[in-house]
Amino acid sequence: MKQIPGGITAPQGWQAAAVAAQIKPSGKPDLTLIYSPTPAVAAGVYTRNLVRAYSVDYDQAITQKQQPVHAIVINSGNANAATGTRGMEAVHETAGLFSSLLQIQPDQVLTASTGVIGVPLPMEKIAQAAPSLVTALSATGSDQAAEAIMTTDLVAKTLALETDLDGVTIRLGGIAKGSGMIHPDMATLLGFITCDAAVEVNLWQTLLQEVTALTFNQITVDGDTSTNDLVLALSNGQAGNALICDPDSPEAAILKQMLTEVCLDLAKKIARDGEGATKLLEVQVSGATTDQDARKVARTIAGSDLFKCALFGCDPNWGRIAAAAGRAGVAFDPAHLAVWMGDIQLMAHGEPLTFDRAAAAAYLKGDPVLVRLDLGPALGQGSAWGCDLTYDYVRINGEYTT
Amino acid sequence: MKQIPGGITAPQGWQAAAVAAQIKPSGKPDLTLIYSPTPAVAAGVYTRNLVRAYSVDYDQAITQKQQPVHAIVINSGNANAATGTRGMEAVHETAGLFSSLLQIQPDQVLTASTGVIGVPLPMEKIAQAAPSLVTALSATGSDQAAEAIMTTDLVAKTLALETDLDGVTIRLGGIAKGSGMIHPDMATLLGFITCDAAVEVNLWQTLLQEVTALTFNQITVDGDTSTNDLVLALSNGQAGNALICDPDSPEAAILKQMLTEVCLDLAKKIARDGEGATKLLEVQVSGATTDQDARKVARTIAGSDLFKCALFGCDPNWGRIAAAAGRAGVAFDPAHLAVWMGDIQLMAHGEPLTFDRAAAAAYLKGDPVLVRLDLGPALGQGSAWGCDLTYDYVRINGEYTT
Repeated sequence: MKQIPGGITAPQGWQAAAVAAQIKPSGKPDLTLIYSPTPAVAAGVYTRNLVRAYSVDYDQAITQKQQPVHAIVINSGNANAATGTRGMEAVHETAGLFSSLLQIQPDQVLTASTGVIGVPLPMEKIAQAAPSLVTALSATGSDQAAEAIMTTDLVAKTLALETDLDGVTIRLGGIAKGSGMIHPDMATLLGFITCDAAVEVNLWQTLLQEVTALTFNQITVDGDTSTNDLVLALSNGQAGNALICDPDSPEAAILKQMLTEVCLDLAKKIARDGEGATKLLEVQVSGATTDQDARKVARTIAGSDLFKCALFGCDPNWGRIAAAAGRAGVAFDPAHLAVWMGDIQLMAHGEPLTFDRAAAAAYLKGDPVLVRLDLGPALGQGSAWGCDLTYDYVRINGEYTT
Repeated sequence: MKQIPGGITAPQGWQAAAVAAQIKPSGKPDLTLIYSPTPAVAAGVYTRNLVRAYSVDYDQAITQKQQPVHAIVINSGNANAATGTRGMEAVHETAGLFSSLLQIQPDQVLTASTGVIGVPLPMEKIAQAAPSLVTALSATGSDQAAEAIMTTDLVAKTLALETDLDGVTIRLGGIAKGSGMIHPDMATLLGFITCDAAVEVNLWQTLLQEVTALTFNQITVDGDTSTNDLVLALSNGQAGNALICDPDSPEAAILKQMLTEVCLDLAKKIARDGEGATKLLEVQVSGATTDQDARKVARTIAGSDLFKCALFGCDPNWGRIAAAAGRAGVAFDPAHLAVWMGDIQLMAHGEPLTFDRAAAAAYLKGDPVLVRLDLGPALGQGSAWGCDLTYDYVRINGEYTT
């Protein structure tokens, strides 16, 4: 796998653009279009929050029908959530507007939103900006898109890869935004993946779900999930490879590896850019009964407020790690537990070791920080990613802004 | 129910005392004894954390055997957890020591610990302090005990009630310590209830479990559970009432009400005294399919870092409340959702209302703060309690103290 520039416009046949539609009070770009003139197979994973924006329901209905799509329209600055029937109308109006301009069907346009909740989406601003957005579409528009989907993210998040598949070059790119937050919004995770491989739609959906379980679903900033979270993956077949249908084929394995590398990179970037975060935390768990158990333990530790504060304070507090593992809802024998921070082992066979606290504290000053746990002799393993809990998290989320 | 002074020594036949055994570096009282010369029925509820102190296993074995007990020995300043076989020996030595001094059987002594994890319990200090602790036992010793079980709790937590039961006065008292934390400990919840009613041991255990589910298990400070959490309830029958056996009797109902009032009061005091907290949060949920569902939603909201930061910032951020409800893992129709802060309604039928933000913000400056949700037409209801997430929480838990 070779990293290449170009993000979501690196794969063949993909264009993107962004404009400032004045939805964000800052006047920064806030309306983004991702487009392939060739129809693409579409897969999606969606927030499990019961209270969700209509755009999530809308996209899910389309990807479940397995219809090919051409475009994704994303606005930042307004989540278009909890706005009742007006929210539903706004999604259909947006899809209708862009389908007219792009001369495609309305249900070939997916939509996503992030920003303030409970405020109607200013459709007149979107209508006014739409023609110039379509005109601006470009095969080098990925960076514009990656910037425009941000809310209070500090850095744009993007990666593209290319590889050889039976003599054909295939490319896969992604952009994402994460845990920046604007009042009174929840942290929203949006991820957009483009690809030029020819892939069967069921397989594409399966790959996205499997990869999301190991990447985007294994990051935590504060345990809160959003009304608007989604990851959409589109592949338009422009690479010219033979259609990938068989999940057990080497080609499917390569495609999955590409998707995993891009999603993992974006997920880690989101965790590192968590609100107020000063460092990325990676938790690796081995020796669990199943991989799922291992992931659950890793996620519980990465989500422990107590340990996240200790991480901020560079305090090698293994007791909090052991206790978080113990409450993860996963069966293991505490007498087998071993814990490391980096290469420093703090616990073996469920008992604390004498260790160099100063060296451990110095290790925790670095970024990223790796915590490893071994739960026992079984073979289940998994990882999760998070960040530290800092004064700035409280400040960002506690500021009185009404 | 009449509130009376005296805490755990208010019920007849109960004595308590505390001394400074120099386990705490501060030199404050850290060794506590609760004692009834008459044997008492004992019930317990214990941490579900897999990684737990041996004292928890030890007490659970005794209460499961339903043997009468006479005493509880509690040390603060050292959790005696993750100390391997030495931890197990320390519990048996402590029970043996006090059983000799009190001339009772070792398995008539329960033990509890809270404090630093992974450091062997200094048994020589406990042995040295034990005789003077037994000598100090007094029928007015409850306040001493309530103080001595504290770690970094800011206030002692205690309540006693008395009521008439078929012409007999029965009394029930409790002390608890909560979410204070000392490095490198987890927040530990310890609760001790004494009573002088004659009650059958199975019924007593059932009552404690039912009441704990509605009180101590419905408070959250940061979602982390401790290796040492437990609530022990002992009743010695000294009131002279007819033995309460029938769970459906009016007498059992009165006893349950007493236990509920004391546990609820102690639980709220623990939440209010959460690390760094500036206010108590009460979340009331109605309209859920079951009471259990309602409690789950209430607990998820009370535990949402995002909402807890908004509460600290006095920001009437109903979006975070709705989103936390949505991810609680409980089925409800978001189109029915209604939300209030105090008397101010922010959401009805799943859509935001226009409300006086200044008045809502002013309401949030108070203490306690009440948030109410109605999920729909069903009858399930429940409450949870928590506190705000503040700079001080991060400071207390992030301080580098090695």
